Amino acid sequence: MKLNKHILKAYAMGIDTHQEPVVYMRQDCHICRAEGFSSNARVLVEANNNKLIATLNVVRNETLSSDQIGLSDIVMVGLDAIEGQPLRIAHAPVVNSLGFVRKKIFGFELSDEEISQIIADISAHKFSDIEIASFLSVCAGKRLSIDEIISLTKAMVSCGKVLEWENHRKVFDKHCIGGLPGNRTTPLVVSIVSAAGLIIPKTSSRAITSPAGTADTMQSLTSVSLSMEEIKRVVNNTGACLAWGGAVNLSPADDMLIRIERALDLDGEGQLIASVLSKKIAAGSTHVIIDIPVGETAKVRMKEDAERLAMLFTQVGEACGINVRCLITDGSKPVGYGIGPSQEAKDILAVLKCRGGAPIDLKERSLILAANLFDMDNGEGLESGLLRARSILESGEALSQFNKIRAEQGEIKALINSKYSHQELSSTSGKLEVIDNRKLARLAKLAGAPFSLNSGLRLHTNVGSQVADGEPLFTLFSDSQGEMSYALDYYLNNLDMFKIQG
Amino acid sequence: MKLNKHILKAYAMGIDTHQEPVVYMRQDCHICRAEGFSSNARVLVEANNNKLIATLNVVRNETLSSDQIGLSDIVMVGLDAIEGQPLRIAHAPVVNSLGFVRKKIFGFELSDEEISQIIADISAHKFSDIEIASFLSVCAGKRLSIDEIISLTKAMVSCGKVLEWENHRKVFDKHCIGGLPGNRTTPLVVSIVSAAGLIIPKTSSRAITSPAGTADTMQSLTSVSLSMEEIKRVVNNTGACLAWGGAVNLSPADDMLIRIERALDLDGEGQLIASVLSKKIAAGSTHVIIDIPVGETAKVRMKEDAERLAMLFTQVGEACGINVRCLITDGSKPVGYGIGPSQEAKDILAVLKCRGGAPIDLKERSLILAANLFDMDNGEGLESGLLRARSILESGEALSQFNKIRAEQGEIKALINSKYSHQELSSTSGKLEVIDNRKLARLAKLAGAPFSLNSGLRLHTNVGSQVADGEPLFTLFSDSQGEMSYALDYYLNNLDMFKIQG
Repeated sequence: MKLNKHILKAYAMGIDTHQEPVVYMRQDCHICRAEGFSSNARVLVEANNNKLIATLNVVRNETLSSDQIGLSDIVMVGLDAIEGQPLRIAHAPVVNSLGFVRKKIFGFELSDEEISQIIADISAHKFSDIEIASFLSVCAGKRLSIDEIISLTKAMVSCGKVLEWENHRKVFDKHCIGGLPGNRTTPLVVSIVSAAGLIIPKTSSRAITSPAGTADTMQSLTSVSLSMEEIKRVVNNTGACLAWGGAVNLSPADDMLIRIERALDLDGEGQLIASVLSKKIAAGSTHVIIDIPVGETAKVRMKEDAERLAMLFTQVGEACGINVRCLITDGSKPVGYGIGPSQEAKDILAVLKCRGGAPIDLKERSLILAANLFDMDNGEGLESGLLRARSILESGEALSQFNKIRAEQGEIKALINSKYSHQELSSTSGKLEVIDNRKLARLAKLAGAPFSLNSGLRLHTNVGSQVADGEPLFTLFSDSQGEMSYALDYYLNNLDMFKIQG
Repeated sequence: MKLNKHILKAYAMGIDTHQEPVVYMRQDCHICRAEGFSSNARVLVEANNNKLIATLNVVRNETLSSDQIGLSDIVMVGLDAIEGQPLRIAHAPVVNSLGFVRKKIFGFELSDEEISQIIADISAHKFSDIEIASFLSVCAGKRLSIDEIISLTKAMVSCGKVLEWENHRKVFDKHCIGGLPGNRTTPLVVSIVSAAGLIIPKTSSRAITSPAGTADTMQSLTSVSLSMEEIKRVVNNTGACLAWGGAVNLSPADDMLIRIERALDLDGEGQLIASVLSKKIAAGSTHVIIDIPVGETAKVRMKEDAERLAMLFTQVGEACGINVRCLITDGSKPVGYGIGPSQEAKDILAVLKCRGGAPIDLKERSLILAANLFDMDNGEGLESGLLRARSILESGEALSQFNKIRAEQGEIKALINSKYSHQELSSTSGKLEVIDNRKLARLAKLAGAPFSLNSGLRLHTNVGSQVADGEPLFTLFSDSQGEMSYALDYYLNNLDMFKIQG
């Protein structure tokens, strides 16, 4: 039996609904009447051998004629549709994997097959945003078993592209699970170890819940939206890259998930591991080091949680055939001085150029990570690795390697100042005991980071230092006056983010 | 410090986004540029002393001029806005209760205060759809403690209106937790007990995941969208009503939650209890009976789950100051013959009119529920109550009481036939061993129930009967050819919903 399908003509609404496909139809059009469609119905739209499931918004006025269907941007692109083209519309088919989501909601463990089906359907845009939100929420908070995390990781790899490095037996990578403002070691580590001849094709994500991801920071210094071929070329010529992973579709499902995670300000354990490792595996990495900062206001607060995460990362990595080493590091205070893409880039350049005021903590953290990668490569031991890393950095080799990578990726961008800045002074004196990482990150985000590359903040002091009354605490940077005043308002309502003991 | 706010002129987009407030702004308008807004940003919109948090969709084309903001229907209504009126737009303030949702996601129990804040914010439209989906998903599947369910119930009562019945010490109510197609006892029970003088101001919901709710069924027989005053008048004149609860805003938060539950096809335990009891409390009920059908394909499958639910209902009721009695009933097969609003109404009329072919199971279930209400009232015992209920029904008193209620509510509607019907014959002979309630309900829903009142199906036989080859199994009714063929297609792919043993 054929399903009853109908035709309407495409009309580009010019509405950006992000990745959720939305279509618009008149309540009185023949399809809404015949099919009994009302708002929020899920409908199947077909054209040019492409199919999409979309959420319906019913329109009442004269925006559309009754033989038209309005398409949001992602539907136009997904169907490869042109204005006026006839589209076939039908009831959306039952998405079986939604039954597996319900199974998980009700507390049952999912099989490899079930998880793989969910991820395939999400990357095929078959889930609505609320369905993705539901799935993510019930997978967050330690609710995925190790087997489920392994399945999730493999599923995410298998629905995207995979990079292959035929000529290299060992391919290195590093990742920081984040939560520590300013901890932008990646560009330093990549420059150091690739200067020593290791292959490290680093793809990074943009920020999920933080004021900057490595991709955001690198974007203020060079091009990061590289195609698969460009990444291959850069890595072949330099041994490394510092590219944005999203542009090469290494894990399309993860990109969908991250969008909703960002909106929910959520970052679940299992999802985190699968997201990180799936991208490493898809990038062709064989040896990966993971930095897990622990601190009261870092992403991971307790040492036991960090140990559990380290154990899971290692086991899931092993199950997926890669070698993972985790480093649990100090996450008690911000790293470096800059927070936000451009401000973090400034710190990186200062370390590479061995400038006097360069942040020592950022430098030392990077050296230890590089030493661990050397040790994973040849077992030389951390002491020897550390000496080698320091010599590469301090000799300027890392800087020239970094600039080589920037040039190969497209251009060497100069850092730009933000339109607005505001220096905040301390209104008391004493020892700076604590900076609340979460509130500090939120402050930088409210100023516009990471979407606005030049927005963020620069600390003028850090935990453990003495602060005098009237001495600058930080400078806030923003490209928007609205965001600047909003951020300052937040600061004034959260003065406890800096705890100064007299 | 004042937040930076900006002005745009209202433009009614005529787009129905259901209850999620959505606004549309041009990417190049001064506010998007100044505030750094991009699609899916949450923005605060103000006019006429009303405020709403809305989700932004950015538009690119000429639908709007750059000094306009497009509003979805719910935003127009919520702001009481008129075309061209200036609106103030700002960053949405931080919704603190979203932090409590995250707390729940990560497995922590919520306090009374935290739950109350979440529910207040949801009913004030401060949550986006994905945020509501996240909250519901992590509360589903036995994840709410009894204290949390009590808090949720109270919170849902306190954010809506409450009916008061000054002259009545005892106010009765009944509820079936559903999942059993055709189990439409409410109109019968209400007619019987109110004919005997009990006060039973029944407000019902529409279907959540089933092919009909009592409000849907009653809508095919009379008006159900009654105002608070109309309900008072009907109850004063008849001792009862059979109205839709949604029209009187008894539990506005619940209406928001149900919409997303419906989209997720979800119906969690704690949410269920809070939803049911909050509406009973808001309706001013003091004595409530709850029907919990148990069967392999009913909503509750296991006797232990039903007992747990009964225990929770009773305890939560007690904590909220009302008297709740639960009846665990047979949920192994559909009740009556009709499924879908009009078809169920047909069965109800047949029972009230004591017609020959009236469904005996529907009648007997209603009598037992009525007997329990009599016993809750005066402790007369079930046997005596059952005799009294039967006499009221068989004497025609219940029928005239039912018609009195219909007339008071507005009109006595005649049942209408659907446009299309299709009789399906058995292709085998033997004993009908099992009907899959879930698949049967899905079949009726695919035919258009409950949105289309006349769509649904009528069984010509039931579990336990002998069926001959070529004998009619059921008739499918639909007002839409598309839905009819879609439903039949589903039936042909799920022939196992009727298990006939030769």
